[in-house]
Amino acid sequence: MAQETERKFLVAGDFTPYATAAIPIAQGYLCTDPERTVRVRRAGDTAYLTIKSAPDERGWSRYEFEQPIPVDDAQKLLSMCVGHRIEKVRHLVPGGDGHTWEVDVFSGANAGLTVAEIELRDADEPLTIPAWVGREVTGDARYYNSALSTRPYTEWA
Amino acid sequence: MAQETERKFLVAGDFTPYATAAIPIAQGYLCTDPERTVRVRRAGDTAYLTIKSAPDERGWSRYEFEQPIPVDDAQKLLSMCVGHRIEKVRHLVPGGDGHTWEVDVFSGANAGLTVAEIELRDADEPLTIPAWVGREVTGDARYYNSALSTRPYTEWA
Repeated sequence: MAQETERKFLVAGDFTPYATAAIPIAQGYLCTDPERTVRVRRAGDTAYLTIKSAPDERGWSRYEFEQPIPVDDAQKLLSMCVGHRIEKVRHLVPGGDGHTWEVDVFSGANAGLTVAEIELRDADEPLTIPAWVGREVTGDARYYNSALSTRPYTEWA
Repeated sequence: MAQETERKFLVAGDFTPYATAAIPIAQGYLCTDPERTVRVRRAGDTAYLTIKSAPDERGWSRYEFEQPIPVDDAQKLLSMCVGHRIEKVRHLVPGGDGHTWEVDVFSGANAGLTVAEIELRDADEPLTIPAWVGREVTGDARYYNSALSTRPYTEWA
């Protein structure tokens, strides 16, 4: 169990010249309750089960329990998930300040959405925002991946 | 991921002379949806995370994914669970036919309830029912531990 501190932004420019890796991810949720999300993720030859608590008031920080699981189990568990499967390609984009951004380009029911996330040691850690990063959406529950599984981007008004 | 085949009965007589072990168990549910229950269990110095699919039509068989987890994580995850915590002592009771019965004596919000379970290789496996075993409740959703966490025995009409 670890404390996870994350900020999330929309993308306002072209990050692709700076990206160093692209990882296809499929994930689903056994529970989308914000107090206790239970996520199944497959990323290439690896798979994880991840449980997160409710975020703090600002939406930056939450407890996270993560456990690698066999890919075959992940496939079965994905078939048991609620709502839409989340499909995205995660691009790793080094920032100038030593941080690495994770830029998720969604497809399927969330096609059209691109979100940039950054993990911090704690909420006070200084962060330089690259030019291609747009409006901050940290704490906006609509952008939680769990929420995108039940109310996907293509169904937003 | 394994297929689990189980039958469940009430207890109509005194099993205690035949019991060979008693294990205190605390467990809770991150998800009580019958299609995808997510259970956190602590039993002494061990802890497990267990995900079960919907049972088949008779309620005997379902898929089960189980993973040992650190006890400290189990304690944190238990604090995130919905409804009532399940507290029970599990007694192991060898049957005459080579099977071992698990007899759960509940306390807390489910005090007064005692249930005997038997795990089978498959639904066709022959089974000798001991004299202390009472009415079968396999498939009766009220007796699912997940259901007992949200509608405990002491609140039944």
